[in-house]
Amino acid sequence: MSDALGGATARQVEERFPRKLRMGMVGGGRGGMIGAVHRRAALLDGGVELVAGAFSSTAERSLESGRDLYVPEDRIYGSWEEMLEAESRMPADKRLDFISVVTPNHVHYPVSLAFAQAGFNVACDKPLCHTVEQAMDLVRAAEENDVVFAVTYNYTGYPMVKQARAMVENGELGEIRKVIVEYPQGWLSERVEADGQKQASWRTDPARSGIAGAIGDIGSHSENLMSYITGLQIEALCADITTFVPGRPLDDDGNVLMRFTNGARGILQVSQVTVGEENALKIRVWGTKAGIRWEQENPNYLYVVSNTDPEKIYKRGNGYLVEAAAAASRIPTGHPEGYYEAFANIYGAFTDTIRAKILGKTPDKLACDFPGPRVGARGVYFIHKVVESSASDVKWLPYNPPV
Amino acid sequence: MSDALGGATARQVEERFPRKLRMGMVGGGRGGMIGAVHRRAALLDGGVELVAGAFSSTAERSLESGRDLYVPEDRIYGSWEEMLEAESRMPADKRLDFISVVTPNHVHYPVSLAFAQAGFNVACDKPLCHTVEQAMDLVRAAEENDVVFAVTYNYTGYPMVKQARAMVENGELGEIRKVIVEYPQGWLSERVEADGQKQASWRTDPARSGIAGAIGDIGSHSENLMSYITGLQIEALCADITTFVPGRPLDDDGNVLMRFTNGARGILQVSQVTVGEENALKIRVWGTKAGIRWEQENPNYLYVVSNTDPEKIYKRGNGYLVEAAAAASRIPTGHPEGYYEAFANIYGAFTDTIRAKILGKTPDKLACDFPGPRVGARGVYFIHKVVESSASDVKWLPYNPPV
Amino acid sequence: MSDALGGATARQVEERFPRKLRMGMVGGGRGGMIGAVHRRAALLDGGVELVAGAFSSTAERSLESGRDLYVPEDRIYGSWEEMLEAESRMPADKRLDFISVVTPNHVHYPVSLAFAQAGFNVACDKPLCHTVEQAMDLVRAAEENDVVFAVTYNYTGYPMVKQARAMVENGELGEIRKVIVEYPQGWLSERVEADGQKQASWRTDPARSGIAGAIGDIGSHSENLMSYITGLQIEALCADITTFVPGRPLDDDGNVLMRFTNGARGILQVSQVTVGEENALKIRVWGTKAGIRWEQENPNYLYVVSNTDPEKIYKRGNGYLVEAAAAASRIPTGHPEGYYEAFANIYGAFTDTIRAKILGKTPDKLACDFPGPRVGARGVYFIHKVVESSASDVKWLPYNPPV
Amino acid sequence: MSDALGGATARQVEERFPRKLRMGMVGGGRGGMIGAVHRRAALLDGGVELVAGAFSSTAERSLESGRDLYVPEDRIYGSWEEMLEAESRMPADKRLDFISVVTPNHVHYPVSLAFAQAGFNVACDKPLCHTVEQAMDLVRAAEENDVVFAVTYNYTGYPMVKQARAMVENGELGEIRKVIVEYPQGWLSERVEADGQKQASWRTDPARSGIAGAIGDIGSHSENLMSYITGLQIEALCADITTFVPGRPLDDDGNVLMRFTNGARGILQVSQVTVGEENALKIRVWGTKAGIRWEQENPNYLYVVSNTDPEKIYKRGNGYLVEAAAAASRIPTGHPEGYYEAFANIYGAFTDTIRAKILGKTPDKLACDFPGPRVGARGVYFIHKVVESSASDVKWLPYNPPV
Repeated sequence: MSDALGGATARQVEERFPRKLRMGMVGGGRGGMIGAVHRRAALLDGGVELVAGAFSSTAERSLESGRDLYVPEDRIYGSWEEMLEAESRMPADKRLDFISVVTPNHVHYPVSLAFAQAGFNVACDKPLCHTVEQAMDLVRAAEENDVVFAVTYNYTGYPMVKQARAMVENGELGEIRKVIVEYPQGWLSERVEADGQKQASWRTDPARSGIAGAIGDIGSHSENLMSYITGLQIEALCADITTFVPGRPLDDDGNVLMRFTNGARGILQVSQVTVGEENALKIRVWGTKAGIRWEQENPNYLYVVSNTDPEKIYKRGNGYLVEAAAAASRIPTGHPEGYYEAFANIYGAFTDTIRAKILGKTPDKLACDFPGPRVGARGVYFIHKVVESSASDVKWLPYNPPV
Repeated sequence: MSDALGGATARQVEERFPRKLRMGMVGGGRGGMIGAVHRRAALLDGGVELVAGAFSSTAERSLESGRDLYVPEDRIYGSWEEMLEAESRMPADKRLDFISVVTPNHVHYPVSLAFAQAGFNVACDKPLCHTVEQAMDLVRAAEENDVVFAVTYNYTGYPMVKQARAMVENGELGEIRKVIVEYPQGWLSERVEADGQKQASWRTDPARSGIAGAIGDIGSHSENLMSYITGLQIEALCADITTFVPGRPLDDDGNVLMRFTNGARGILQVSQVTVGEENALKIRVWGTKAGIRWEQENPNYLYVVSNTDPEKIYKRGNGYLVEAAAAASRIPTGHPEGYYEAFANIYGAFTDTIRAKILGKTPDKLACDFPGPRVGARGVYFIHKVVESSASDVKWLPYNPPV
Repeated sequence: MSDALGGATARQVEERFPRKLRMGMVGGGRGGMIGAVHRRAALLDGGVELVAGAFSSTAERSLESGRDLYVPEDRIYGSWEEMLEAESRMPADKRLDFISVVTPNHVHYPVSLAFAQAGFNVACDKPLCHTVEQAMDLVRAAEENDVVFAVTYNYTGYPMVKQARAMVENGELGEIRKVIVEYPQGWLSERVEADGQKQASWRTDPARSGIAGAIGDIGSHSENLMSYITGLQIEALCADITTFVPGRPLDDDGNVLMRFTNGARGILQVSQVTVGEENALKIRVWGTKAGIRWEQENPNYLYVVSNTDPEKIYKRGNGYLVEAAAAASRIPTGHPEGYYEAFANIYGAFTDTIRAKILGKTPDKLACDFPGPRVGARGVYFIHKVVESSASDVKWLPYNPPV
Repeated sequence: MSDALGGATARQVEERFPRKLRMGMVGGGRGGMIGAVHRRAALLDGGVELVAGAFSSTAERSLESGRDLYVPEDRIYGSWEEMLEAESRMPADKRLDFISVVTPNHVHYPVSLAFAQAGFNVACDKPLCHTVEQAMDLVRAAEENDVVFAVTYNYTGYPMVKQARAMVENGELGEIRKVIVEYPQGWLSERVEADGQKQASWRTDPARSGIAGAIGDIGSHSENLMSYITGLQIEALCADITTFVPGRPLDDDGNVLMRFTNGARGILQVSQVTVGEENALKIRVWGTKAGIRWEQENPNYLYVVSNTDPEKIYKRGNGYLVEAAAAASRIPTGHPEGYYEAFANIYGAFTDTIRAKILGKTPDKLACDFPGPRVGARGVYFIHKVVESSASDVKWLPYNPPV
């Protein structure tokens, strides 16, 4: 990651990049939640500045929001189309290094496509878009235009998730047999969208959210986390998704059985109606030698169990962790890191890759550790397959992602 | 429960029973695990004495085992048939008040049937027997011969499980929407049965264990716990059971999706190959108002969550618990109770019902709180349906238990 | 321990003892708490039977209590003096093998002394007695009469406490630098003794409880646990004990700084007015290499930390534990054991030593692992020193226990 | 706090401040730890920019560090004296709004004093300075020059600490009886300062660290947290501080008994040699009605216990929290916040107070919730009293802080 502001354990900057990267935003205005997260994450390490944006779907609200953020007024835009046009004409020393797309889901596709095709690097929130076809368009647009493109599956930014991935990869778990990933939330247990709760409104609206509700939002996070850590390929799945809250057009709960190509078995379960649950993403993986457990709400720990040794609690920031986990930490062990820092690690890798591109260098291995459009496309495919399976009487639906 | 030995919080004995109940055992000899548990559980409260037994499948080993236990030699038998014959002729003042059947599964049926038909009260380990037909025979035998018959699903004996059941029943959770019960173990992650490990040998042998392995052993515990707490009826299920360890004829892992008649959804997952897991039975139930969580390995706590209040940890032995939970405790709060005490609560209710029967009284409500043969039959049905579903391409298998 | 009833992990009986040991009780009648614990603990492993007792300070209540317990009426006594006289005359084949003294503190001394001098083996509850002089009388009585004498500091019976002790002894922690033992309770936060709560009444009464309240009850447990695990010798202490509840004549809270002879430092803190705390005895020990943590309310775990490795959770019943911990377990890992089993381990060692004595053998090392009268005397000395220090303006009070 | 970047639960900006505040730093160059924390904390909410600094004790290193941070070269200084002189002459539209002093302790005093006397607002790391006299100079300098002055006791910035403080203040705990604050670390368990570890070097050097080691560093944090939450006044204390590591001139461990003016009792214990401990600051407070527990390493939870109700876990971000806790959160519940956010809350209140001062307004109540120089002076007094007590044979040292 860009390490301009230093840190106790973060890796050293080998070569100082000569300036801050210039960031633009589409979305992220007043009243949003995830836009502010993207900003804090992108700016946390001091190597990025926010210089432009179309922050809202109305010009007035965009202006107000941009002023809140101390963006120069001449670079606050009333629409993303206006922004694209104006920013495309900027001279090199003012030109945006990347944009962040932090709108409701239905806007991801047109914005990301247009900016990528115009040569802008893009960080787009997840899920990437509504259909697999759109996703493949974005894969192609990114690759053909040679833009750095991130899909902000932020949970893979946690140091202990990186430790987990490394331990699976190193064979410390043996052959994987079973995976359980779950993501229970409770905030949609009543029909809060009927009261105009902004987050709930668009997430429960098929026109904006897409084909799925809970599965689209937190199901795709779960699939991504599972794939990132285990590297397993789903061979077939069997899903049961449900809408518990009357009047809601999309699912708010889902349970999925999975079979993997290596013979492993899995369960993915998510819910937004499990009252009292907050953001309890959790994954457990067992192999022939050892098992691991990680919980997002207490992310600085990774639990490792086996039949032969005491349970071990790996803790962020310690010397016994792998390099990828060490490099993703900013402060000494025992000083809790959280959601922002994990999100910032996605941005750190994304922006380091942009810096390498600008410098004409090959990004190092850690800089490449962020989810790209192919990962985003696999997420969209997963959402569609779960919905298809749930509607089907056939038990096992074959699974063949496009990328 | 019989409260002869007292306790800080246990309910008072209203009328002293004039003597200890006389217990006989079938199984439970040297080298077994569960037989010793039954003995300690039955004897814990001081109201029972062990006076007879056919402790092993060989006469010599039975004799050795009976001597270990200070059972008079004239009541140590070489086979259960011999025991049945001899004990049936005992005079009233020596006659057994009940027998405990603690053999491998395949012996449950003939022993329990024969003793029940001879008028002996029976406590039989779970699962009750191999087939639903056998189970229904036992239901009839118990009812026609008016014997008190318990199936020792011991996990429902924990005080905090009783608290959970009461909270569901009282409506404190609202309408139930989702249930997740899981029971991961790791002790069969390698083929230990090939090395003669006694517990592993019979549990992985269809002739002795029955149609299922993990599902039969810990799957049936899970189903029972879920049913006891929630009272929900399964409408249909969809199962995927697997044998991971080569050479093993029965499943060692299983995942089951469930739909309940009230519209709730559920997941039941068990494994004996999840390395590093010990006996991690855990249940979570969420309703429209609140959710609960209970974990067998730390059984003195019940966690309650909602969208409106701080998470609450109910702890065994406190004044705010329901009567059924209070009566199931023996020592003050903070003095941990465990597996034996829960098991003893099953025996306590079973033996109190026997005492009431002897006295010609109606047992009180708490004394009736033990699993009987109908519960046992439902457990056997569950095992068969899971196996059937797993072998089927049909997604949802309808579920219609015989009782 | 006597292993007549078997167990999954308990060590094997090498030679079967030919009969159950005969136990008598002084105290433990209706309404008591600890008497029932002693009974269940002594009888748990099947090698002991209760045959006599003076269960209460009134003859009528003793009779009622003895009947509850199915003790033959001719061996239920109206007073301990009567019991001593009658039982001393019993023939060898009926004579008591030991008595348990489970009265309020002030009765410990006369009863234990008289029975020990009459040659009876004695298990006495803690604290041993009111004064150091009394304690030394008991040490001499036990030694001169060659009786097996246990003081039931039950918390040292937990398997993971034995593991902790072994790890310190084996040098796995390095040189000990710091010890923190704490025992917060909340049950005396109001003046419940004024309402006739039986446990509270005698514990807050100097005539029955002795010179100290909280320090005498749970402070002495804390000192014992600390000494058992660490083997450290206190060199000097500095105490501050307090009575928070108006009208209570004894302390209900105490904080003690300690300096040990090896240079280590320690804190012991106990309270009975820390509302909401149940029985939260906890010990932490750090050496130059590693630290450990054990908590009575979740006793099946031992936490081990170091600067170089992940935190480790040792769990009861696993193959990696030392022999003393393994032998103190009865059931497989993950099946929680609790307070009774730990208490039963004290009785198990005590009764195995009695059996060895009867057989004329040397008890094995594990059988000797119970607290004797010298340990009891050190506990009484500790209580007195804390009270003395608290009343003094001198900062450090030298500490020279009599044994 | 300044809320320019928004957040899910943070309070709204009532009036937008027209520009970012301008921050300068003294200290915080390459290789430091706390300087980067201050920067991320100050900048997290988007209302501050870093524009000047004397980042190191050597001009060359300061220049390198300033370039890393994209500070304009003409405002990177070779010494703080040079910075003071140059920045004092800046025109109003470039003048610094505040400086942050993030040097080793011995530099705090001269820098803070000089800048405060020159009219700059100051955020100084803790402990404030070496002596009580210096501290009182700084109190006067701040007050006479009307500068906003913060001492960054960051642990009071956590939302759940604010919840705890409010619950004590609201009387939910009743009258406080007992307080235990502890801060175990293990990183100085060996003489790492001899190997040139930068953090260890100055912290164990009296010339730079001051009169105390562990007590000065983490002891003062502990005292501050305790005072912030409970509002109790120490009446007398009794301390035992120790240097365990040979060759180290300052204490690395300390235990302190405290008596408070309301009759409550307390223990404060800190260590830097308790191996395996990371940053385990923890506080427990019990009153007549309820008790609370908070742990820095898992800061999003506050545990509340009582004798009458289930234990409650208050969690950050929920609707049931007090305003001060709610306003200190940035993201929805279940998305873990950590050390940076708490630190940022101190800066948020400090900078909001500066904004109010610039606007000529009275800062609102929440903006005033940061530790000022009087709190800093009390911390210095505490350190000195602990050292004095430890060296004394008198048991109780009276405690009369200067402010």
